[in-house]
Amino acid sequence: MKLSHVIESQQFTLPMLTELFQRAEQMERIVRRGGTQDYNHKIMASLFYEPSTRTRFSFESAMLRLGGKVISTESASTFSSVSLGETLEDTIRVVDDYADVIVLRHNEVGGAQRAAAVSSVSVINAGEGKGGGQHPTQALLDLYTIYKELHKLDGLKVAMVGNLADGRTVRSLSYLLGKFERVKIYFVAPPSLQMKSDLLNHLSEHNVWYTLETDLKQVLPEVDVVYVTRIERERFTGTDADFLSLMRRYFFDQATMQLLPQRVIVMHPLPRSSEIDPDVDKDNRAAYFRQAQNGVVIRMALLTWVLES
Amino acid sequence: MKLSHVIESQQFTLPMLTELFQRAEQMERIVRRGGTQDYNHKIMASLFYEPSTRTRFSFESAMLRLGGKVISTESASTFSSVSLGETLEDTIRVVDDYADVIVLRHNEVGGAQRAAAVSSVSVINAGEGKGGGQHPTQALLDLYTIYKELHKLDGLKVAMVGNLADGRTVRSLSYLLGKFERVKIYFVAPPSLQMKSDLLNHLSEHNVWYTLETDLKQVLPEVDVVYVTRIERERFTGTDADFLSLMRRYFFDQATMQLLPQRVIVMHPLPRSSEIDPDVDKDNRAAYFRQAQNGVVIRMALLTWVLES
Amino acid sequence: MKLSHVIESQQFTLPMLTELFQRAEQMERIVRRGGTQDYNHKIMASLFYEPSTRTRFSFESAMLRLGGKVISTESASTFSSVSLGETLEDTIRVVDDYADVIVLRHNEVGGAQRAAAVSSVSVINAGEGKGGGQHPTQALLDLYTIYKELHKLDGLKVAMVGNLADGRTVRSLSYLLGKFERVKIYFVAPPSLQMKSDLLNHLSEHNVWYTLETDLKQVLPEVDVVYVTRIERERFTGTDADFLSLMRRYFFDQATMQLLPQRVIVMHPLPRSSEIDPDVDKDNRAAYFRQAQNGVVIRMALLTWVLES
Repeated sequence: MKLSHVIESQQFTLPMLTELFQRAEQMERIVRRGGTQDYNHKIMASLFYEPSTRTRFSFESAMLRLGGKVISTESASTFSSVSLGETLEDTIRVVDDYADVIVLRHNEVGGAQRAAAVSSVSVINAGEGKGGGQHPTQALLDLYTIYKELHKLDGLKVAMVGNLADGRTVRSLSYLLGKFERVKIYFVAPPSLQMKSDLLNHLSEHNVWYTLETDLKQVLPEVDVVYVTRIERERFTGTDADFLSLMRRYFFDQATMQLLPQRVIVMHPLPRSSEIDPDVDKDNRAAYFRQAQNGVVIRMALLTWVLES
Repeated sequence: MKLSHVIESQQFTLPMLTELFQRAEQMERIVRRGGTQDYNHKIMASLFYEPSTRTRFSFESAMLRLGGKVISTESASTFSSVSLGETLEDTIRVVDDYADVIVLRHNEVGGAQRAAAVSSVSVINAGEGKGGGQHPTQALLDLYTIYKELHKLDGLKVAMVGNLADGRTVRSLSYLLGKFERVKIYFVAPPSLQMKSDLLNHLSEHNVWYTLETDLKQVLPEVDVVYVTRIERERFTGTDADFLSLMRRYFFDQATMQLLPQRVIVMHPLPRSSEIDPDVDKDNRAAYFRQAQNGVVIRMALLTWVLES
Repeated sequence: MKLSHVIESQQFTLPMLTELFQRAEQMERIVRRGGTQDYNHKIMASLFYEPSTRTRFSFESAMLRLGGKVISTESASTFSSVSLGETLEDTIRVVDDYADVIVLRHNEVGGAQRAAAVSSVSVINAGEGKGGGQHPTQALLDLYTIYKELHKLDGLKVAMVGNLADGRTVRSLSYLLGKFERVKIYFVAPPSLQMKSDLLNHLSEHNVWYTLETDLKQVLPEVDVVYVTRIERERFTGTDADFLSLMRRYFFDQATMQLLPQRVIVMHPLPRSSEIDPDVDKDNRAAYFRQAQNGVVIRMALLTWVLES
């Protein structure tokens, strides 16, 4: 199979996901033996219109482990000719001469698609827009984490918890999960932060089972995976007291973990704020740092794939 | 021939330009076969006192295609000890221990010359100052683009269009063009944005033919090359209505292109604002993206030259 | 000997300093022959919470001379998820998957120690906090400079001059000097900027001879090394006239140099402001640019050491 660009999680079919995970497993072996120099003639451009040190580092580490090279900007919107009114299309048509693959984080939904339309090299979407945009490589590493930790994807029961209305990662992951058989998704959030109807409609159309819940404790004993996300104070319109009570209802500490069956994993796209107590980190079911680690091999897999296409 | 530093376009004699273009053609072959690792023991420092992602990426891509390594700062004036009052000379005397070549974009005219005076390694001027400064590598890639596209430089007729009073690239290119035989330069701009007298005097002293024009349409049928530059609203002191009428007179769209002979090329240093309609991009005479592409091989050629000197 | 992390200068015992200097001398030979590719499978993360282009470049140049690779952020506190409230510990637990060694400049005293406590890879402190923090690699390169220039460390007489109250480098170097035999330290500063009592107590406890002085001219004929530091206007609470008179009393120009014996060296951590006249640079006793140069080999030595531990 060929992979020209990585724009949104929906583009990945089941056979493509199978190939991606096989490639990722091969990358784990390559990383264990100290990386490779096979791509030392390839250049990746990190073109970040908004800063994200974590995602940028993950991609750059992936490219360097492959032996490749990197040119990088931390904040293209401040630093580049964007401030002189240059369009994204013009920027891409210049940068595609400088690199063999462009990793783009753009501030507008649809930016990666626009870039791919004019680029002579592959474009990988490293997150775009705010609430409504996609972050497909995060969704792919999330899915890979579930696959690695639980060895199954069909029949999976997943709770998505926190601010789902603005959650880019939760949206992208839901699209991917919907491709598998008999998946059940529990969206657990206060009504004002619940998952938006466009994604729920998408799930309905594809016959994916879901439910909207507010009570975390009731859902916990039912699921295989709990995917926790940040609830930011500024996204919540209630009073400070309401916010604190909300945080308390969705807070993960050792007491919450006791409600979880033994085989369940807790995931989080990071960075976390105060929604998970650091005491939980030692619990082997806390998978979020292993999840971040999977980002490097998934991105290595995607880079090798687009660079040979 | 030796090349110690690249400071201003005037320093390049005709034999040097010939050698540069031969080196650039060799670099095109190297890039086509995937770059080289020959310079993997060399380090280039990108020292940018003002941000220019495009120029920085072009230099860094050039160094990486050669197998070399890069240390880089996007905005030295904010981030470095410049804010503690360190002189450029002191900074250079430290950075020259960290790298084998320094690519400098300085905010003051004369910065590259001052840096070269104290540096133990080669300094390449990546643009300096605002209106009056030089940007020699841009001028060299502009000249190389004309040479590649039209296969001649003697007898060339070139229209320079836009804000010529503040145009760093136009100045550097004019110096270079003046070295060739029977060149004619048409400076096309509203009187308030016309080319400054110091450069016109330089051309007169070197017996280079030039004319000052305001009417673009009259000049277009006469020339081999049209070099378009940005007219920034804030540089123009007239009313908004005057500015719009000005933009309209110097605007390139498909109608303007119909006034151009078939063999003529349209160049632009980029980024463009609204002075060229994107519809023009598909016209094969639109050479500006090919021009940007030539930046990498010209910079590879300069880097190999100073690194062996 | 093993070296897991580089946190503070006190951690280096005399045998460790001997090993470090032997490694640094070997690195000088490696740099002279054009570096090595031995570490081309290793990645260093530059994680700078406050900008320091000089120190960052020095570390990155060191890693690249070893053949290694670098991922880098110039200003982690602005750009990363720090602004979303992420703890340093969480950031490190993610970044340690992306790199084989983390070079950390943190804005709080104790940051490097906290990072080392959770990191799965080595952490090197590249300066932390303001006045009270440590900058151990600066102190190590300072000590190496004295060793290289004067071929002795026991029995050394060192004058520390300038703003000693806020001087991170002076503190770290004093700790190191105190490990040698019969060392004498002359702290030369106006009373309001004198060395703080905690460090003086440390020296007393370790039986290190020191004296507090205000008159630079009296001390100069006595010592082997003069270590000059910046006096920043904003750190000095007196009037402008008082500040000027102060600067004049501690100013190094050719007249001051005539008071110095021939074998003495003048050091400065750089960047300098106006405390040393540039005319002094030509004097062979001015060792500050050679000192900066030693930073690369000391950091190469430390990197090879932690990477093999």
